[in-house]
Amino acid sequence: MSVNANAGGRSRNHIVLTSHGAPTGVAGTAPTLNWGAPDPALRGPVVATLTDPTHRNAIGAHAGGYSVYRALAIAAGALPADFKADLTNTAPSDAIGPHPQWADPAKIVSLDPYGHITGEAFAEALAAGLDVRPTIAVTRAHIDMPEIREAIKAGRLKIDGDIIGPKGDVRVTKAAIEPVWYLPGIAERFGVSEGALRRALFEHTGGMFPELVTRGDLKVFLPPIGGMTLYMFGDPAKIGDGVTPLACRVHDECNGSDVFSSDICTCRPYLAHGIEICVEMAQKGGVGLVIYNRKEGRALGEVTKFLVYNARKRQEGGDRPDAYFKRTECVAGVQDMRFQELMPDVFHWLGISKIDRFASMSDMKFNALARAGIEVVERVPIPDELIPPDARVEMEAKVSAGYYGAGFQSQYDATQGRALEE
Amino acid sequence: MSVNANAGGRSRNHIVLTSHGAPTGVAGTAPTLNWGAPDPALRGPVVATLTDPTHRNAIGAHAGGYSVYRALAIAAGALPADFKADLTNTAPSDAIGPHPQWADPAKIVSLDPYGHITGEAFAEALAAGLDVRPTIAVTRAHIDMPEIREAIKAGRLKIDGDIIGPKGDVRVTKAAIEPVWYLPGIAERFGVSEGALRRALFEHTGGMFPELVTRGDLKVFLPPIGGMTLYMFGDPAKIGDGVTPLACRVHDECNGSDVFSSDICTCRPYLAHGIEICVEMAQKGGVGLVIYNRKEGRALGEVTKFLVYNARKRQEGGDRPDAYFKRTECVAGVQDMRFQELMPDVFHWLGISKIDRFASMSDMKFNALARAGIEVVERVPIPDELIPPDARVEMEAKVSAGYYGAGFQSQYDATQGRALEE
Repeated sequence: MSVNANAGGRSRNHIVLTSHGAPTGVAGTAPTLNWGAPDPALRGPVVATLTDPTHRNAIGAHAGGYSVYRALAIAAGALPADFKADLTNTAPSDAIGPHPQWADPAKIVSLDPYGHITGEAFAEALAAGLDVRPTIAVTRAHIDMPEIREAIKAGRLKIDGDIIGPKGDVRVTKAAIEPVWYLPGIAERFGVSEGALRRALFEHTGGMFPELVTRGDLKVFLPPIGGMTLYMFGDPAKIGDGVTPLACRVHDECNGSDVFSSDICTCRPYLAHGIEICVEMAQKGGVGLVIYNRKEGRALGEVTKFLVYNARKRQEGGDRPDAYFKRTECVAGVQDMRFQELMPDVFHWLGISKIDRFASMSDMKFNALARAGIEVVERVPIPDELIPPDARVEMEAKVSAGYYGAGFQSQYDATQGRALEE
Repeated sequence: MSVNANAGGRSRNHIVLTSHGAPTGVAGTAPTLNWGAPDPALRGPVVATLTDPTHRNAIGAHAGGYSVYRALAIAAGALPADFKADLTNTAPSDAIGPHPQWADPAKIVSLDPYGHITGEAFAEALAAGLDVRPTIAVTRAHIDMPEIREAIKAGRLKIDGDIIGPKGDVRVTKAAIEPVWYLPGIAERFGVSEGALRRALFEHTGGMFPELVTRGDLKVFLPPIGGMTLYMFGDPAKIGDGVTPLACRVHDECNGSDVFSSDICTCRPYLAHGIEICVEMAQKGGVGLVIYNRKEGRALGEVTKFLVYNARKRQEGGDRPDAYFKRTECVAGVQDMRFQELMPDVFHWLGISKIDRFASMSDMKFNALARAGIEVVERVPIPDELIPPDARVEMEAKVSAGYYGAGFQSQYDATQGRALEE
């Protein structure tokens, strides 16, 4: 068996398909990784770059699926295979952590808590020539959403020159986070053995990453899925301080609604409402947090989502709440693949143990947070006037499925969605 | 070597890492695939499902990276490994094609032209028990964007009760498209050998899908990257008819702007402007087409994008046009990984050979269309008043880099972006 699992920048004439067990002859060159160790020196850096294959201690590649574009760039001769990033001036705009939760290997299993401060936490490894890449980036921005301007016009929010600027623009701190999976922890979260998880991830993706099954010694996996983006309102230093009140929306991507305001669902209205309560909380001296997860169409993808729309609209009796989830099950086999089990990790990363106002009625999200020991004080439903008419089918289906905890008046019998021809 | 490459629904006790050459003993059970053959019977279906591994004639898995969630669902016991979709009532809401371009193996290499009509085109294979899955779904919707309501208020668009409904909602036909790569065609597009492409895709993704190098007989690959969504305005039957005038925007995802209206770039303003000219064209009896490509941050991903933002804001002299592209190169090695080379495929799928009004000033997009033989009659720049102030750095950088063909007045010296603290 060959000495390393993945080809890096060096030109080589043989192709190494996979490796079994620890590399021969280069043992000890990959840094040790002790997930959940109490400080970065003991924890060790995640090395997943392809520029120094013998140093890799993780399966997969940086940037999720965008690694495919990187490979194309190399194939096309646009990018040297051994390119190393110059990370000058890229460090976070705002400090996040460390928090005690970072030292608990069971609390955070789907992101690297040191992913934003690799330059500082792993300075020694970097000085020794290891290509340690950030998996999290933190920056600042201003957002300027029409719904916020509407809320100002309606008198629900006020321009204060601080959180909301003179033109209705809102100051935010943003963080982009790539998934970094600690496989033993992921397995535990789902109540399966690590071996069963590894095998399923390999076999049921069409044979992606044989190292999942051949390299049991590599415990960390960077899967080719989308990550998340955080939008923080108010002083980010106060998030997770245990005293400052927090408003929050956990939002799972829905491109059709979030970008194009498609009226069959409540996704963008709920997102905008969540942002509004976050801004409101920040203006009162609290903090706000929106978590945007790249999980299109309940993590089934958009093709499945559109197939389900057609089946809903065309079924006998038309689009109606009682058949809403059933149509998804027929096409996808399940109602939902978002796995809220991993969602609370980011709260632990931010040191959060309590959410004062949670802009969501989803029991799946609420229960996942409760299981992770994160208290939700108040669940804030979406005001009725923000629900688009065609989205009532979704809302009623969720109410009748017990999807929502409370706070909804059913209009079940009267609810029918638009037909395909309408 | 084992008989098949990927484990499917059946419970098995051995793990098959990869396969070399055609399967032994089951030769002939996977349908033949002749990319670009003149009719579906000769072309053959793409079989990439994991429920019948011996029938697979493609590498990878359906739904891109969402196959990882599917694998998790199976690991967690939520989804039977052998689940087959019930596709009743899921067929397209509107007919698309066939077009002569479908029968040219060089014109379409990154999507399956029959991906939306698998039920009809491959009825025989389906009847024989093959699990042929759609990779494209076509449905109808109404979108309700604040920018369109603004355009109505400003008198640029009018409610007509047809394209624009009474509340300012716009009727659209949507299509979601998953990438299906014909590897010899992709290699040709980039001017590299198929072998070099396969090896780069395998090695520079961290060893994803060994079949890329072991199964030269499998010519089709479903990569774990995002696909695209089409929004069609007016009568979709007229798109590609060769006579009806077409307005078009090709938009590459920028979540921070598209969803949150972050003011550092012009992405959402350009998207909204593109939709406006599409609606306008549809109201004049033409058709409109918006293509939304999942290529976040120039296909570098959002972590890289935010790292670059920090480097731009912190560099000596502050954020300025002359260093705009340089900062991206320092972090990512290239300015851009979007590869517009593959972008024109969807125009061929729709039978389009001419775009009358193209809402983009990008030379990369324009040149890629020209190379594909698609004529762009008029390039429509974004009106100056729609550019957010902090986004002027991006605009000026693009102007000075010759990114735009024409139509821009440079304000180069006066242009400086917001600092991180602002």
